[in-house]
Amino acid sequence: MTIRDRETVLDTDVREVVADAAGAAALLEIGDRLGLVPHIENGQAVTVAGLAEETLVPPEGVAKYLEAMTSAGIMSESTELPGTFTVADDFDQIRYESGYLSWALNANRPFVNNALEFLRDPRAAGKRHTRDGRQVAVASEWMGSKAFYPVALETILKARPSHVVDLGAGTARLLIEILGQLPETTAVALDLDGPSCKEAQAAAERAGMSDRLTVVERSIQSVAEDAGPVAGADVVHAGFVFHDMMPEEEDVADGVLANCRDALRPGGIMAITEAVPFVQNVRERRFSAIVTYYHQQFMRRRLLTEQEWTAKLLQAGFSEVECVPHRFPTGRLFIAKKK
Amino acid sequence: MTIRDRETVLDTDVREVVADAAGAAALLEIGDRLGLVPHIENGQAVTVAGLAEETLVPPEGVAKYLEAMTSAGIMSESTELPGTFTVADDFDQIRYESGYLSWALNANRPFVNNALEFLRDPRAAGKRHTRDGRQVAVASEWMGSKAFYPVALETILKARPSHVVDLGAGTARLLIEILGQLPETTAVALDLDGPSCKEAQAAAERAGMSDRLTVVERSIQSVAEDAGPVAGADVVHAGFVFHDMMPEEEDVADGVLANCRDALRPGGIMAITEAVPFVQNVRERRFSAIVTYYHQQFMRRRLLTEQEWTAKLLQAGFSEVECVPHRFPTGRLFIAKKK
Repeated sequence: MTIRDRETVLDTDVREVVADAAGAAALLEIGDRLGLVPHIENGQAVTVAGLAEETLVPPEGVAKYLEAMTSAGIMSESTELPGTFTVADDFDQIRYESGYLSWALNANRPFVNNALEFLRDPRAAGKRHTRDGRQVAVASEWMGSKAFYPVALETILKARPSHVVDLGAGTARLLIEILGQLPETTAVALDLDGPSCKEAQAAAERAGMSDRLTVVERSIQSVAEDAGPVAGADVVHAGFVFHDMMPEEEDVADGVLANCRDALRPGGIMAITEAVPFVQNVRERRFSAIVTYYHQQFMRRRLLTEQEWTAKLLQAGFSEVECVPHRFPTGRLFIAKKK
Repeated sequence: MTIRDRETVLDTDVREVVADAAGAAALLEIGDRLGLVPHIENGQAVTVAGLAEETLVPPEGVAKYLEAMTSAGIMSESTELPGTFTVADDFDQIRYESGYLSWALNANRPFVNNALEFLRDPRAAGKRHTRDGRQVAVASEWMGSKAFYPVALETILKARPSHVVDLGAGTARLLIEILGQLPETTAVALDLDGPSCKEAQAAAERAGMSDRLTVVERSIQSVAEDAGPVAGADVVHAGFVFHDMMPEEEDVADGVLANCRDALRPGGIMAITEAVPFVQNVRERRFSAIVTYYHQQFMRRRLLTEQEWTAKLLQAGFSEVECVPHRFPTGRLFIAKKK
């Protein structure tokens, strides 16, 4: 009997980077569905019994999950405190990369699974097959952690605003981070989604910021009619929300932009993160293609180019527009200044 | 107005390998659902009109898909014949990598989406939520193209068998490749799945091999009772099929192995590809973890270690067992020799 030395053979092989990413993303998605991710993602030291108590997962299920995560090198067991587990040092990177996979292959799965129907009758298919908003939000948060939050945050902090408004604020994660770093600043979180607004309010209270953060449950479109929510801002931020109005409500979007420009204090900025279509450079083209294709073919959205966004913002009365690329392939931050 | 030079900034950034893979896998999965992949994957030159005629996709849908694939650098348009498209030179690698993503995040999606239910009542959940066999087959074929077919094929061809049997042959892809290279050789394709057997028979006829390839619609387990289908073989191959019998039918598996050993001609080999559990080396551990976790926690299968497989094959009467790692992380080819 001979068993060929496996390590010798494998060491000469290339690393299977995509297989690694596939394994990690599946494990993280499972951890998310089980409600385990929030309990581990910030490096908390956890035990089987503790996690079972805090979630709906039975202890044996927790143990098997931690076994898989540890075997994968995504978590490790403490040598000093056996039975205690923490995520690996590169967990943030793993979760970030999993975001791309989760967005392309999970959040948008209804488009993949019903592709032929979408191509034959997009309108009817769009009504029948909708995405799960929570899956979109989770994937976006994972990607955004490194791909678009940092540049948006840095841009806003650099402006040192007295008052910030976030259009499409979701659970107000970005604003709470900003208010944490700028203790004199006030903010308005505007979002159409009721549950997100409730969670934003609760998060503000937990952070002791409810006196500085106002939550407004309202559509972004409403700002075209009533500029109240953006009044007196130094910074208005809007992340991946304007393209939802294109093409049908482009005039409404223009109205929102013009009202934001008018409502901003002199020297204020509007910071808009958007996806631009079919970017051709090698670093971005592959993910850009799926982002563009999903939006154009399946969501029937029109994505504007860098030139179109710049022209639109100048048209709205801003005096200067800067376009900063995000790490997120195909993502751009447009910084529009009011004189 | 200033637009910062985007290329300058991006050139200094790292390549987003996982975002690239996510985009490619989503585009390939969509192409598979649309029925387009078979028409392009072998480098065929295609046009919008031609693809629309050969599939159910309307011309506009084909055009948009080719636009996305071309923009992603997965296909390109001919400069000599505008309107004619072919896949990029590295398409085989892209499809191969997409296989890992499609297996982990699409074929096994029922496990992810219903994870809590599986951990609380695995038996009931297993009955309610089943995988789509076609999705498993497509992902396996994409992975297998580079990850396990080549080593299995090479091993079998090297043995120059007069007669080969494939247990769980599916559509007999491997056998048809072998018979194509060994014109005197005969083969038996055994599979339980009726449609796969029909397709195997049709494929053999198309290849002019129906006189050399016999299709047997029967379970692998049946070989424990009736060794007829494996009689007189020089090589018996079985890819990822034995673990389906573990743990409940381990005695049946042992019976199959013993009958194969008895039925083989002297000097013949049995070549078994299997997944071994929770491999710890850095190259394999991440994908190995998800393969093992899916099988143990969600499919309630027991995966045997290298040592257990080797012992089992020796126990079945083979005189020598070699274990060869596949490129597929966690995959092993066991080559068991009969004296």
